[in-house]
Amino acid sequence: MSDSLTEFRRFRERMNTRILERGPLTTKRFFALDTQAYQEGALSVKVKELLGLVASLVLRCDDCVTYHLVRCREEGVTAEEVDDAMAIGLVVGGSIVIPHLRRAVDRWDELDGGVEGGRE
Amino acid sequence: MSDSLTEFRRFRERMNTRILERGPLTTKRFFALDTQAYQEGALSVKVKELLGLVASLVLRCDDCVTYHLVRCREEGVTAEEVDDAMAIGLVVGGSIVIPHLRRAVDRWDELDGGVEGGRE
Amino acid sequence: MSDSLTEFRRFRERMNTRILERGPLTTKRFFALDTQAYQEGALSVKVKELLGLVASLVLRCDDCVTYHLVRCREEGVTAEEVDDAMAIGLVVGGSIVIPHLRRAVDRWDELDGGVEGGRE
Amino acid sequence: MSDSLTEFRRFRERMNTRILERGPLTTKRFFALDTQAYQEGALSVKVKELLGLVASLVLRCDDCVTYHLVRCREEGVTAEEVDDAMAIGLVVGGSIVIPHLRRAVDRWDELDGGVEGGRE
Amino acid sequence: MSDSLTEFRRFRERMNTRILERGPLTTKRFFALDTQAYQEGALSVKVKELLGLVASLVLRCDDCVTYHLVRCREEGVTAEEVDDAMAIGLVVGGSIVIPHLRRAVDRWDELDGGVEGGRE
Amino acid sequence: MSDSLTEFRRFRERMNTRILERGPLTTKRFFALDTQAYQEGALSVKVKELLGLVASLVLRCDDCVTYHLVRCREEGVTAEEVDDAMAIGLVVGGSIVIPHLRRAVDRWDELDGGVEGGRE
Repeated sequence: MSDSLTEFRRFRERMNTRILERGPLTTKRFFALDTQAYQEGALSVKVKELLGLVASLVLRCDDCVTYHLVRCREEGVTAEEVDDAMAIGLVVGGSIVIPHLRRAVDRWDELDGGVEGGRE
Repeated sequence: MSDSLTEFRRFRERMNTRILERGPLTTKRFFALDTQAYQEGALSVKVKELLGLVASLVLRCDDCVTYHLVRCREEGVTAEEVDDAMAIGLVVGGSIVIPHLRRAVDRWDELDGGVEGGRE
Repeated sequence: MSDSLTEFRRFRERMNTRILERGPLTTKRFFALDTQAYQEGALSVKVKELLGLVASLVLRCDDCVTYHLVRCREEGVTAEEVDDAMAIGLVVGGSIVIPHLRRAVDRWDELDGGVEGGRE
Repeated sequence: MSDSLTEFRRFRERMNTRILERGPLTTKRFFALDTQAYQEGALSVKVKELLGLVASLVLRCDDCVTYHLVRCREEGVTAEEVDDAMAIGLVVGGSIVIPHLRRAVDRWDELDGGVEGGRE
Repeated sequence: MSDSLTEFRRFRERMNTRILERGPLTTKRFFALDTQAYQEGALSVKVKELLGLVASLVLRCDDCVTYHLVRCREEGVTAEEVDDAMAIGLVVGGSIVIPHLRRAVDRWDELDGGVEGGRE
Repeated sequence: MSDSLTEFRRFRERMNTRILERGPLTTKRFFALDTQAYQEGALSVKVKELLGLVASLVLRCDDCVTYHLVRCREEGVTAEEVDDAMAIGLVVGGSIVIPHLRRAVDRWDELDGGVEGGRE
């Protein structure tokens, strides 16, 4: 139903490198800004990643959702917190969000080593 | 170009089960509401499915379009009626809708017994 | 909270005339196509207007919603049918649709003779 | 440039009452669900309101942004936290978000009694 | 139907100042980047402003459209070129774009001193 | 990560044929209009294709982006011009555009015979 996380990461890294070597300067600076936005500030990194997750979910961008799920997990966000955040995304964005929610939960399970990794 | 209907259905069912067992309550209630919305009321089920189809098309959600095409077919909506509804989605949503229209027509053909049913 | 229906209609007509006298041909043809899309076909005019209404609601275009509410009323669509259609728009499009739903219901009440006509 | 907060609240309350008396049941339940989604859960009310704020900002809904700003303020969210959250909305949603950011900051100032109220 | 250009400019300038004094740094840098993106590069300023115009039109942001129309005029873009660009926005974005097209043409006329200014 | 250009073209042609044989007339006329919009007018074909590219990018339609990249290349648009145009799409549309930018740059490389094909 979707590329594996490994494929996602490889393609993401390869193309980020390509984009940054092509430019223009505006694009390079945008990428730097995108990293800076999620750094510790008045809000914690954890809350910022949840904000990024919900923004990505209501704008229905699977790759962006995957990225923020990976980051949420790295920051120690629990499954219950992710589900709570995504419930808000669902109510704000409507049933059109559901297919993306399905893929998001599948990703989270994959990160958990559940469905794909086979342990859990 | 796209997952088969069988894969679509399996993934959909598996993830719906996962989502409902994870919760939270808000998400579960949203799923119930989503089912309720399309039940017979002042408007017939058939008209409601056409409304869901066009809303999904202009919001450009392939999985949602597939779901409503399946439901339209079950409710006896004809190909001409579906095409008429999708023409409105195309005019309202613009050429950006065209790639989704292509996949929608392909799905309808698949439902018609082409790819899945094996006759045509 | 919003311009009156009379203002809406005047601005709409004045600017449509301006747009059609400016061109280009592509724009003129698009306007013709937009009219044609809602004419009787495999689906009735009434169903097509409901499709236009829900598409406009989920895409959150107040002016488009107003236009289709006016047309729905002209075609004899009842308040219950409009509410049923808009409920689908709400579930598909999410809570982000609510401010537009408020203005839509206000318009419908205005069309009913409340604010503008006073009698009907 | 925008209706005052008082007008916003009056219209909002009046139309919510109208919508709930009209129905259908799906719409009423959606409104209940929309309230429930922001209640204390795995995430705090404060974080949930920030999620609602950013989701509303990237989806570019001024009324929704106003609502969540009012709620954020009631929950004791600081100006710095709101600005941090909106910066993420800006980076995720792009420059198209800027006009909504302008109105959001104007609203926050209005809530502060600053620009409009004249005290502070 | 809309605020005058003078009001638009005053509000825009006042709020840009407010936003830049509030921060955070991410927001300030985004504003700088937004200016930089439209400077002469592989493409001319004129073409870049047309790109900004069409992007704003299909994303249906009236304030952004107004801004780029002002800039197009400053760069010597003709009415025919603007109409040609907007026709593409109309076909790509669909009839949902029409209300924004109406306001855009009204703005252009206002910039021309035509409809509102009364001379020309 | 994505279907090859050859697959894209085959599916696109096959489904366009299907759509045009199914109708209705509104849909057929829309397809004709879509072709007409990009023909030489007050703006050159090259500028129009860049407008189509950026509109497709901010609306996040990979297939539409692919189509306009192919057309840009046929019209002699350089990599630097495409990158400049896409940088505007990125700033207007925000980080949500990045996954589509990655696939767009990958497509351009594929058209160049670079990364995938190796010769052309």
